[in-house]
Amino acid sequence: MEPFKIHILGCGSALPTLRHNPSAQVVELRGKQFMIDCGEGTQTQMRRSRIGFNKVVAIFISHIHGDHCFGLIGMLSSFGLLGRTMPLAIYAPKEFKPVLDMMLKTFCYDFDYEIQFHAVDTTKQQVIYEDRSLTVESIPLKHRLPTCGFLFREKPTLPHIRRDMIDFYHIPVSQINNIKNGASWTDEEGREIPNSRLTTPADPARSYAYCSDTCYLPSLHERVAGVSCLYHESTYITADIDRAELYYHSTAAQAAQVARDANVGRLLLGHYSSKYDDEQQLLKEAQEVFPESQLTAEGMTIDLK
Amino acid sequence: MEPFKIHILGCGSALPTLRHNPSAQVVELRGKQFMIDCGEGTQTQMRRSRIGFNKVVAIFISHIHGDHCFGLIGMLSSFGLLGRTMPLAIYAPKEFKPVLDMMLKTFCYDFDYEIQFHAVDTTKQQVIYEDRSLTVESIPLKHRLPTCGFLFREKPTLPHIRRDMIDFYHIPVSQINNIKNGASWTDEEGREIPNSRLTTPADPARSYAYCSDTCYLPSLHERVAGVSCLYHESTYITADIDRAELYYHSTAAQAAQVARDANVGRLLLGHYSSKYDDEQQLLKEAQEVFPESQLTAEGMTIDLK
Repeated sequence: MEPFKIHILGCGSALPTLRHNPSAQVVELRGKQFMIDCGEGTQTQMRRSRIGFNKVVAIFISHIHGDHCFGLIGMLSSFGLLGRTMPLAIYAPKEFKPVLDMMLKTFCYDFDYEIQFHAVDTTKQQVIYEDRSLTVESIPLKHRLPTCGFLFREKPTLPHIRRDMIDFYHIPVSQINNIKNGASWTDEEGREIPNSRLTTPADPARSYAYCSDTCYLPSLHERVAGVSCLYHESTYITADIDRAELYYHSTAAQAAQVARDANVGRLLLGHYSSKYDDEQQLLKEAQEVFPESQLTAEGMTIDLK
Repeated sequence: MEPFKIHILGCGSALPTLRHNPSAQVVELRGKQFMIDCGEGTQTQMRRSRIGFNKVVAIFISHIHGDHCFGLIGMLSSFGLLGRTMPLAIYAPKEFKPVLDMMLKTFCYDFDYEIQFHAVDTTKQQVIYEDRSLTVESIPLKHRLPTCGFLFREKPTLPHIRRDMIDFYHIPVSQINNIKNGASWTDEEGREIPNSRLTTPADPARSYAYCSDTCYLPSLHERVAGVSCLYHESTYITADIDRAELYYHSTAAQAAQVARDANVGRLLLGHYSSKYDDEQQLLKEAQEVFPESQLTAEGMTIDLK
């Protein structure tokens, strides 16, 4: 199975500390990398995680609070200094464009690659990116300004060829793609061998939903139903639910409730408030609601097997 | 003697690496902190160096290349999140104002402190900041866009009182300030005791010049003549002098030549190209010209005794 990786580059919240960098992740599938959010220091975190700069094809910014985008201009600048020529797509709320344009005009006027800005409508769930291997959808969230999450869905892959059957029926290599695509085989004696005998089922398509920042949304589970992996912000413990409500953030238990209601494969916690010295209480409260919860940390890579 | 400290937060150049952060320093004198340049990650470097955020009264930006200012908006944002109310002065080339204003409007609209922008004329050497303890002058430099250095001059301090003489002549405490300011003393028998007998000379006033980025300027030594400490960029080794000339940077030997010609107390090297795995060759080449040369490194503090 092709790796479908999520690299955690930062899982802190508004205030960078020595324990946590602000939000940034890289999703990696079939040789392409997709960045989600880009807090200050992300380019250094990429170096620390040994993630090359050359495979990043698109960057998705959830909302324009600084802890989700202050690292972007430095990273774009480094891409340019390192001689990038491959175009780069940036998906973000439309409010980001004026400030991004101004920064690019001031700091990146002499680079050799094109930046293609795509304004994302944060109020709709719709496909905003598509290639051969995956689609990315926006997920409307509710925060203090226009915000959306992103849902990465791997496209269905083809069934696996049964090498033993191919040999047994002397099927030529030229037919393998047809069989992968569902064809049956007629042997020399005119017998039809059904496709189901020649293949084993495709790997299930995997999916990853990133939801940050948001207050608890009781209907969010419908938008992320059944994903293999959900990242949902968990800024606060339940004792600080007043703060969560005041700042349009979520508690770890609320994140877990979304995960449980959506029946996801696993839940990743992050966007931790800097007021906590460690995140064990967040984990405990999430696992009480949804056992398949885990903490993220800088440098961690999750592979969706 | 009051500490006059220079904290090195970053001494790399355009490309941040795992070895070096981009340019940033903090000058500290009499309880006030002055930041010079503010590359990406500076706020984290401050935390790492245990430098509080509350004593920074002014920030001086030498020029608007990203490696000298990409960390500013994040730091200003964190100041706001931490409840700063004290105004903050920013001194920078006028070209910085439009992009700074746009970033502040987008990201820092709800903070409780005032940012006072002062456009610096990078073509003149003149006092741009003054308080009770020091002046800061701009130093014209020559780079690919308007750039200046900054010269911090401590104001002359008062002579030291000789406690033994004060006791010997029974001079009342009320007179100490007068004597510090140069008064003599007339004793009960009408004899005049000269000031020179009651005091020892003041500590010499210290000074620090920061020169980055610049090509080698043969007359720069006149502007920084006799400073206690000079920081001069030393991006390249002599073998790479073509690059230095192409990009308007200096070699370590050129930095040392300025230091020698200016007869400074010591030279700090920095703004190292990321192409070198270590900086020993830079140090060697500088010391051959000016022995009192030293490398800077992140986390280092220099106290000008």
